[in-house]
Amino acid sequence: MKTLTADCLRRITSDIFRACQAPDKEANTVAEILVLSNLLGLDSHGVIRIPQYVQLIEEKKILPGGALTIKHETATTTVLDVGLNFGQVGAKRATEIAIEKARKNGIGSSILHRSNHVGCLGVYTRMAAKQNFIAIGSCGSPGGGHWVSPYGGREGRLATNPISFAAPSSEDPIVMDISTSMASEGKIRLMRNRHEQLGKGWILDANGSPSTDPNKFYGPPMGVILPLGGSLGYKGFALSVMAQILCTQLGGVDWRPENPLGYGNCMWILVINIESFTPVEKFKQEMNEYIRYLKSSAPAPGFEEVVIPGELDNRAMKERKSNGINIEDETWGQIEEVAQKLNVRL
Amino acid sequence: MKTLTADCLRRITSDIFRACQAPDKEANTVAEILVLSNLLGLDSHGVIRIPQYVQLIEEKKILPGGALTIKHETATTTVLDVGLNFGQVGAKRATEIAIEKARKNGIGSSILHRSNHVGCLGVYTRMAAKQNFIAIGSCGSPGGGHWVSPYGGREGRLATNPISFAAPSSEDPIVMDISTSMASEGKIRLMRNRHEQLGKGWILDANGSPSTDPNKFYGPPMGVILPLGGSLGYKGFALSVMAQILCTQLGGVDWRPENPLGYGNCMWILVINIESFTPVEKFKQEMNEYIRYLKSSAPAPGFEEVVIPGELDNRAMKERKSNGINIEDETWGQIEEVAQKLNVRL
Repeated sequence: MKTLTADCLRRITSDIFRACQAPDKEANTVAEILVLSNLLGLDSHGVIRIPQYVQLIEEKKILPGGALTIKHETATTTVLDVGLNFGQVGAKRATEIAIEKARKNGIGSSILHRSNHVGCLGVYTRMAAKQNFIAIGSCGSPGGGHWVSPYGGREGRLATNPISFAAPSSEDPIVMDISTSMASEGKIRLMRNRHEQLGKGWILDANGSPSTDPNKFYGPPMGVILPLGGSLGYKGFALSVMAQILCTQLGGVDWRPENPLGYGNCMWILVINIESFTPVEKFKQEMNEYIRYLKSSAPAPGFEEVVIPGELDNRAMKERKSNGINIEDETWGQIEEVAQKLNVRL
Repeated sequence: MKTLTADCLRRITSDIFRACQAPDKEANTVAEILVLSNLLGLDSHGVIRIPQYVQLIEEKKILPGGALTIKHETATTTVLDVGLNFGQVGAKRATEIAIEKARKNGIGSSILHRSNHVGCLGVYTRMAAKQNFIAIGSCGSPGGGHWVSPYGGREGRLATNPISFAAPSSEDPIVMDISTSMASEGKIRLMRNRHEQLGKGWILDANGSPSTDPNKFYGPPMGVILPLGGSLGYKGFALSVMAQILCTQLGGVDWRPENPLGYGNCMWILVINIESFTPVEKFKQEMNEYIRYLKSSAPAPGFEEVVIPGELDNRAMKERKSNGINIEDETWGQIEEVAQKLNVRL
């Protein structure tokens, strides 16, 4: 286990991507967003991704320095072609544009084209909340990773399609960032490696039979992950379909499994200027009281307290800003290997 | 059992509300929306509500003819004070305004103040989809009906807070309209009356213990309905919190349990002009293909087909337009009673 400060980890991440010919600003953006994910406790979307992105650069799937161009826009909407640049570079820019349009015109919304993996969706909605806006976002799949079955089906037709929401309070923001399936593929992979059994109702095997064995998901032949909701899985299915439509069909992005850019990501984000509805200071004070009201519920048996969406992330951030970020040996070893190959000093 | 055509049921509904001093246009709007809910198979939000609304008029909680006034607006946003008029009158107008703003400026969004029960949320998002727009909406609670516990809690802090989404295709629209809890209070009431057991994980009794006995929900003391998701209930909780914030804190609507208008409804709706992102005809054709792709999954054991969000409603509408709407004796008896009192010929 290695413990590093956020500053140090950002410096290393940025150096690695600059060594891959990423312009300074892009390398800094990717570093900022990966390390922010680690600070928030979302390690699966943090610096663990460095080796993956470096490989994608080598395969010319990520093109550092790729031009960001506005394909189509109105006073409130933007379709941003990311030019196969880093997903983080595209998603951050798309969020900034949506914030600017919301500032001027009440609401702003952006959709990405030709984007790589954007990382943690909640980072972008949180960015808007930090500037006193409300944001809603979703990711869908431009073709790849259709591991989630529709409700009532046993073949994959959807990705894990997350939905995020963030709103400011006078203290920490409320941030939701949830997949619309019973589990992410990453979680199932981890449980397989740890020889753990999955929760009931998470997957079907290739024959459509329920299973708690993670190996039955991977097959071959592969099984499927079920949509959120169990016997109410039509709700998770509907949320997943909504997430997908907003990113792909609405953005004119190809959603078919044959899409050669299916390894990438698509994202929709909507930003609301609170001042267009109600004074923002009043909103934030009401939010403080609302959070207190929600937390005032007596805990259910087996729980110690009611935890607000995003509260664990906010706590992790405070703790990790003070005590540093722990990187497990395997991830650190991979980062060291990449750094050595690129002649980057750690 | 009584079977009536939609036209006949609209005429009766409209006559009843006109007899309560509602202006023609308002009576027609309420009739149109209640009967549309019946056509869609959503009978719990259809003409069964007539006696309830008539009583609310007698109690001066619904004020027919109450002035709709715009409290605050920008090029994209509107806060509409419904003046305690029918919720349907306010929600329809709010949707129309949001559509007009989306037509002009790409996106439009409305929030209601001082509104009564809006009925079925999906009716309004569907209205936008019928005009080739995408819509997202939510209802929260202006104080009343906090029967749903936060995840990890055992005291009610939320209403069943539905979320709706609708998008057009060249054929029928996709329409999601889901509560963010494990069941609606209406469903639990029905199951109690039928002496049925609830699903596992739907409720906690007043002590916070899981129960499948609907009487344990009503108490006294009352239990709670759990948020959507079971062991992943933090996802349903987060969706419910999002729905509530968009309607109440963002709209400047009082959300506290002490709000004397807590019997009413609040609603947020967002309308997106598809043309602001991509040509609408292309979008609709892609949607047709996407629906076919989703439905092409082999059914899971126990299912006959994959059913798309809104598909059952679309089917019910076709069937009921042809064969009429069945009204069960008890509901019809209540409507007859109200009609007689108001001297309305059925």
